Amino acid sequence: MTERHGHDHSSSSDYDKKIDDIFDLNLIQPILKYYSIKDNKLHDNIYNEKYLIRPLSISDYDHGFIDLLCQLTECGQITYDEFKQRFYQMKQCLNTYYILIIEDINLNKQIIGTATLVCEKKFIRQLGIRGRIEDVVVDNRYRGQQLGKLLIDLLTKFAHEKCHCYKISLECKDDLVSFYKQFGYDHEDKQNYLCQRFPKLSKKN
Amino acid sequence: MTERHGHDHSSSSDYDKKIDDIFDLNLIQPILKYYSIKDNKLHDNIYNEKYLIRPLSISDYDHGFIDLLCQLTECGQITYDEFKQRFYQMKQCLNTYYILIIEDINLNKQIIGTATLVCEKKFIRQLGIRGRIEDVVVDNRYRGQQLGKLLIDLLTKFAHEKCHCYKISLECKDDLVSFYKQFGYDHEDKQNYLCQRFPKLSKKN
Repeated sequence: MTERHGHDHSSSSDYDKKIDDIFDLNLIQPILKYYSIKDNKLHDNIYNEKYLIRPLSISDYDHGFIDLLCQLTECGQITYDEFKQRFYQMKQCLNTYYILIIEDINLNKQIIGTATLVCEKKFIRQLGIRGRIEDVVVDNRYRGQQLGKLLIDLLTKFAHEKCHCYKISLECKDDLVSFYKQFGYDHEDKQNYLCQRFPKLSKKN
Repeated sequence: MTERHGHDHSSSSDYDKKIDDIFDLNLIQPILKYYSIKDNKLHDNIYNEKYLIRPLSISDYDHGFIDLLCQLTECGQITYDEFKQRFYQMKQCLNTYYILIIEDINLNKQIIGTATLVCEKKFIRQLGIRGRIEDVVVDNRYRGQQLGKLLIDLLTKFAHEKCHCYKISLECKDDLVSFYKQFGYDHEDKQNYLCQRFPKLSKKN
């Protein structure tokens, strides 16, 4: 696994580096390390220092993070200041937004994959934590390398072992059900997911 | 609609009162007021000052809030200090946890209903807000008075009009689908809700 400091900006102090990430890399490091000693070839490209997996950083605005999300769904135009504001709003919600990204080290640190674990704090279940996997996308040009699988596997283990979620859920289209089943996700009997959508209003929260 | 100051603790300063709630009552007050001028009899008991609807307060630990949640699902033993810690963890996540409760004014301010709107901050959808309705329960002894309907209607309007959610979702058992459909919630075509659950681990986040 490539070490994080392999791509630090030379102008950043240690303190800057620390607050620059959406969550503390050290939290997920043990699970990343577990991958690096696993006896399989699944993530060869990660071990070969071709790709780096790490928390979202504020500087990822310049490396195509929003463009990548646009491959998933509508994002609209987002300025750097808007991105930064939302980034710190998320970060201010402690132990809530765990956004992982994969960068292509050799392609100008381009962001080529992302997935988010959102942790909801509960009173029920002995002050339980409920996890949700959100906004999973791998760049079209990098599909077929099992990078999505890596992200989901990592976040699921992280949610269970580090966040101690009693439940993790996600929503997906029909054609992705079998993909998610391999990580233990499945339909629940007699459980319904209901939803309503609204057209955009002029003022945002 | 009963005014909030009708049941303030005499020892609380204005400042204490403000930080005592999980979210600012003023945010939802316009939507509560809308109900009080609606020309229907749905919520007579609310207008008659029998019940009070308001944000969860730290003092609700003493008025059966956890006991009420136990009617919904397993809660375990939760001390006041644990409740308080979780309460402030939620509150520290700005614009995220909107927990409404209904109290029976004449029964020692007993908490008889609750529902939560959890707002998730997104980068997608032009920095969108995704709402989720969670942990809806009305005390067994108060069912049939459409208090659940009131809570869901309020939180849905609040999520749309104040939080500007582009989407609100919830999960429910089969027998509650028709209940939620009246507020605009429905299944989505080709959309799957997948989930996995874990046994309790010894250490919590």
